[in-house]
Amino acid sequence: MSYPVVERKKTYRIGIVGASGYTGSELVRLLLNHPEVSIEIITSETHQGKLFSDLYPQFRGIANFILQPMEKLRECDVDLVFLALPHGISMKFVKEFGTDKFTIIDLSADFRITNPDVYKEWYKTDHNASEFLNEAVYGLPEINRADIRRARLIANPGCYPTSAILALLPLLKNNLIDPKSIIIDSKSGVSGAGAKPKDTTHFPEVFGNFSAYGLLTHRHTPEIEQVLSQVCDTVVSTLFTPHLLPVDRGILTTTYSVPTQDVSPADLLQLYSQFYLKEKFVRVCDTPPALKHVRGSNYFDVFVTYDKRTNKIVTVSVIDNLVKGAAGQAIQNMNIMFNLLESTALLNLPLCP
Amino acid sequence: MSYPVVERKKTYRIGIVGASGYTGSELVRLLLNHPEVSIEIITSETHQGKLFSDLYPQFRGIANFILQPMEKLRECDVDLVFLALPHGISMKFVKEFGTDKFTIIDLSADFRITNPDVYKEWYKTDHNASEFLNEAVYGLPEINRADIRRARLIANPGCYPTSAILALLPLLKNNLIDPKSIIIDSKSGVSGAGAKPKDTTHFPEVFGNFSAYGLLTHRHTPEIEQVLSQVCDTVVSTLFTPHLLPVDRGILTTTYSVPTQDVSPADLLQLYSQFYLKEKFVRVCDTPPALKHVRGSNYFDVFVTYDKRTNKIVTVSVIDNLVKGAAGQAIQNMNIMFNLLESTALLNLPLCP
Amino acid sequence: MSYPVVERKKTYRIGIVGASGYTGSELVRLLLNHPEVSIEIITSETHQGKLFSDLYPQFRGIANFILQPMEKLRECDVDLVFLALPHGISMKFVKEFGTDKFTIIDLSADFRITNPDVYKEWYKTDHNASEFLNEAVYGLPEINRADIRRARLIANPGCYPTSAILALLPLLKNNLIDPKSIIIDSKSGVSGAGAKPKDTTHFPEVFGNFSAYGLLTHRHTPEIEQVLSQVCDTVVSTLFTPHLLPVDRGILTTTYSVPTQDVSPADLLQLYSQFYLKEKFVRVCDTPPALKHVRGSNYFDVFVTYDKRTNKIVTVSVIDNLVKGAAGQAIQNMNIMFNLLESTALLNLPLCP
Amino acid sequence: MSYPVVERKKTYRIGIVGASGYTGSELVRLLLNHPEVSIEIITSETHQGKLFSDLYPQFRGIANFILQPMEKLRECDVDLVFLALPHGISMKFVKEFGTDKFTIIDLSADFRITNPDVYKEWYKTDHNASEFLNEAVYGLPEINRADIRRARLIANPGCYPTSAILALLPLLKNNLIDPKSIIIDSKSGVSGAGAKPKDTTHFPEVFGNFSAYGLLTHRHTPEIEQVLSQVCDTVVSTLFTPHLLPVDRGILTTTYSVPTQDVSPADLLQLYSQFYLKEKFVRVCDTPPALKHVRGSNYFDVFVTYDKRTNKIVTVSVIDNLVKGAAGQAIQNMNIMFNLLESTALLNLPLCP
Repeated sequence: MSYPVVERKKTYRIGIVGASGYTGSELVRLLLNHPEVSIEIITSETHQGKLFSDLYPQFRGIANFILQPMEKLRECDVDLVFLALPHGISMKFVKEFGTDKFTIIDLSADFRITNPDVYKEWYKTDHNASEFLNEAVYGLPEINRADIRRARLIANPGCYPTSAILALLPLLKNNLIDPKSIIIDSKSGVSGAGAKPKDTTHFPEVFGNFSAYGLLTHRHTPEIEQVLSQVCDTVVSTLFTPHLLPVDRGILTTTYSVPTQDVSPADLLQLYSQFYLKEKFVRVCDTPPALKHVRGSNYFDVFVTYDKRTNKIVTVSVIDNLVKGAAGQAIQNMNIMFNLLESTALLNLPLCP
Repeated sequence: MSYPVVERKKTYRIGIVGASGYTGSELVRLLLNHPEVSIEIITSETHQGKLFSDLYPQFRGIANFILQPMEKLRECDVDLVFLALPHGISMKFVKEFGTDKFTIIDLSADFRITNPDVYKEWYKTDHNASEFLNEAVYGLPEINRADIRRARLIANPGCYPTSAILALLPLLKNNLIDPKSIIIDSKSGVSGAGAKPKDTTHFPEVFGNFSAYGLLTHRHTPEIEQVLSQVCDTVVSTLFTPHLLPVDRGILTTTYSVPTQDVSPADLLQLYSQFYLKEKFVRVCDTPPALKHVRGSNYFDVFVTYDKRTNKIVTVSVIDNLVKGAAGQAIQNMNIMFNLLESTALLNLPLCP
Repeated sequence: MSYPVVERKKTYRIGIVGASGYTGSELVRLLLNHPEVSIEIITSETHQGKLFSDLYPQFRGIANFILQPMEKLRECDVDLVFLALPHGISMKFVKEFGTDKFTIIDLSADFRITNPDVYKEWYKTDHNASEFLNEAVYGLPEINRADIRRARLIANPGCYPTSAILALLPLLKNNLIDPKSIIIDSKSGVSGAGAKPKDTTHFPEVFGNFSAYGLLTHRHTPEIEQVLSQVCDTVVSTLFTPHLLPVDRGILTTTYSVPTQDVSPADLLQLYSQFYLKEKFVRVCDTPPALKHVRGSNYFDVFVTYDKRTNKIVTVSVIDNLVKGAAGQAIQNMNIMFNLLESTALLNLPLCP
Repeated sequence: MSYPVVERKKTYRIGIVGASGYTGSELVRLLLNHPEVSIEIITSETHQGKLFSDLYPQFRGIANFILQPMEKLRECDVDLVFLALPHGISMKFVKEFGTDKFTIIDLSADFRITNPDVYKEWYKTDHNASEFLNEAVYGLPEINRADIRRARLIANPGCYPTSAILALLPLLKNNLIDPKSIIIDSKSGVSGAGAKPKDTTHFPEVFGNFSAYGLLTHRHTPEIEQVLSQVCDTVVSTLFTPHLLPVDRGILTTTYSVPTQDVSPADLLQLYSQFYLKEKFVRVCDTPPALKHVRGSNYFDVFVTYDKRTNKIVTVSVIDNLVKGAAGQAIQNMNIMFNLLESTALLNLPLCP
């Protein structure tokens, strides 16, 4: 017998703006295998005119896109645009293009913080498109699925916040922990810092090394606090400490918090399993997960336990920062918006070892 | 609109024997997304009775197989079996089970060397199933596609041989190089050494390190020489030097040879492009490829050039040793045998960065 | 002019028992350049009769020791013996050889825990040489220098405890933090797990990976609590979470604790600087230190700050687990016992990048 | 007893020009422990005014140098200057400052190539200080010790050339190989590319990766050919292929050549042992050496063998590119020039694991 290949027109047309970074290349990796979506245009101001696969030779012979200037979008007929732009630039794009012509999934931080004053405080720049803040939906499907479906503008979550929020959500939703007691100790691979070389991401500096950075001041702090506070309807404050892991991808987050009532390790595991029962991409584990268990995939793996000696709840969770922490989650949001099966194009299994 | 999910019975049933190693887990990773094939049984003598996903937690919640003893295969109705066993054990399996009940793709070295004396010389053990050597087809689709389609027993190529043979084939097929002049300098990631811990693969020994091993005596030497000699109908001898790279996956092979006639870099590139024009998984590159350009994928990337100063042809090629160098190629062979589209389940794009 | 080389007899003779592990090889690396000490004998039961440099080829042509059985020590005239044995074995050695013939620096855990019941609880084995526990001095020079000088038996501190205790000491000594509030989040390179290959330290498993282990139950917990409690004369309890870093050497420890009074980042830095003013190997840093800043050296680097938002004190500290966390600290102790300059043979500067 | 500390004035005063790169920091690491030499001045045009230890925090509290502008050298009284400048800049320095006031060890390529036309061909720039080329001595002690002693200007060898020349020298000196048959396949850690971040040395690009670069055109080719040709008094041509290893330090070089007479593996090892008998930093090994066997040290380890099947001689050799391949060798040269023990300050043992 022969395997039938049906060449059919794909249903949706999308654009990727700012495709020269890692988030852009990861969107391409995943979308090329999406059965319902075709990439109509990918843009880069810096590299316009270049072949995308000259920047990312892993796509040689597969993705023959020429990088376009953003302006070209005006001539394109696309249903949805992914913004893989730096913060500050995304808001300009939204202001200019609006959300009428196409829906937007913004992977920058620009529409995550609902209060423009808080945005200014942590990002050190004015918000110039604050009129869109109300419209923007925080694109974490596990908490916002219904709103995402109806949204015209998605603020795709940060990588650290995704790993921390999903780890703490069942505890806070059930009022099991003191919302002021939370410590988040995260460790991220270097791709989280972007594709642009810096002193701090120069190979000989990072190799064999490990360090904390952004101590007390990392910009993902207010995002985590805002989302957890909203969801749980109480003021949550967290101490967030990111560290730089000498690996390319992945975030492991360890959280510590103080319970407000009697808990046991078994109860907690049961609670988490129940809480995430219907979530395709959340795996509640009975042993602590490791970074490579999710490499290249859209999974969020989490373990929870309780230390009676010191009366603390501990969670350990992992994601691939470029997938569930960025491009994969964006596509999950897109699938929801397009009313497709949520896991479409996201079933690549983890690459391990 | 909604995305139609058709739950349909898969066409073929397969087994994986010796599934506790890296080749086994890689077969599972790729086959779980194969639309025409269902995994009926996976076996491990050492770990029988255990949950496969306890060994490989990346499959938690995805692959709920219990590892079975090999004997269980007798009760199963399967179309094809992958042997992911050590050399020496594979031949016993074939002798015992034969090739009538199901076709076999053997990922060990046992049926690669056609001459049992050569096998004994390099593998230091008698060949106990030499009656099957005639029947076995060397499973490199790029040279043996027609025979593979008809085969009942496939000897899936070694990882180093795949990278070296495909790199040198266009040269030898066109009598462009002296078949005695070939030097193959290969560098492989550690997963090539298997899942079993050894002194030489202990993390602190390999990390930040690099070394040559198996100098002059590596067992892939006769395999490379045999295949190249057969294909080119002349005696090919090669000096093969493997090195251990401090990475998990990937092989990069650099070859050197002396041309027998006038060549130019441009001509060579043109020749390679033409030679591999119809090969879905071969990408001829105009700059040297890097290991991560094929990570997790079934691609073989190759670059060729000529050094006028020293009169040498140089090739640089890369594969993922666990995919095109093992499990991916095995599935490519299976697709051919089942008359499916050759790339089915093999279109995962490279994971990079 | 010419550089005068004075060949003189070295003053002290030492032995290394259990020299085939990483602690043993690190002792050799450092002691070979010690001007006052000669290595008289090195032993290994498993590898007796072998050339030490066949196990550790980095010493080829430099250290021509034959590994001896432990019993050979009876015939040797040595002043001091380093025990680089597994826990459980060290105590047997001490019971058998006593501390009269030579002084002993034990790098195992056997004499660190003063209460044999606690030892049994955490190490799951009876203490068979508890009569020596009283005599044993915990060999952390920064807190026990005077006792070390007079000791016949040193319990050399664990690697994690060294990094955690020195980080928290100034806070606890000054009653600045709630002794029940301490969280210790540590990340260690793989050499801390020893030279013996295991599944969990197999290169392809650790490479590109990161994970927590020994959650809530790691044996260094009671050591940290005991030492901090003794020094500060109050019951200290800590939640200790170790993680496995994909690097060969180094520990980075992040601690969190709740202050008992008003503090400021500047005051804390000032306090630490003052506290460690005379310590040759402690460097108080005004930015968070990185793992490679101490690689191969005996330094302990520490940063401290205060987060007003969440009212937590945070410290970040690093050591090389094989040097300040093991062999280097042992030699520091030896120098003190021999009344030598404490830094003798310990002034190798960090290898970075 | 107490260990006598004699504070004495050091004999020689040196300067390091262009100290902000890895070669500069490595010179500092090694020279700080040199008993006869004091660092009088270290310069950096880009970072002048900064604390050296702010650039390289591993020196915190140890090296309190302020980086000076080069011009400050005019006011200093130094015996010798190390130039750790990019090629093209070194020659300007030599032209301006001459070699009268102080001797110079240049770690750039500017004075290695004796023929300015060859320099121009490979380095794409005119040689503006060719009047010094005659005076310059190629600073490879193993071949030029006598000339080095008398030199005022040393051209410190390149890292790749050091590893290749010393590996091939015994063969060529004894006319054992065809001087046109040599293939040099080298693999280098990333610190060889310098401290300045580039796209190609960005951590996520290099991690888990491996690639060939500078194929056929690497600038170390003419240096290798020139030195081997001079030493052996015949025209040597070599095909040199460098590869980028995902590690911070170290070069492993594999060479292939065709013997001109009957040889055996044992004879070759014997020949090498004899040839390098008196060389303190050359270790002839009876098994292939690994990168980490020399990490942080000044050793050059080499293995040689012969493959009868293909009639090729193979060598495998390793160095630390920043030590024997740069700063260590420069200090070795300095020791020779100052008539000190050649190994002074160079006896740090390899850091392994």
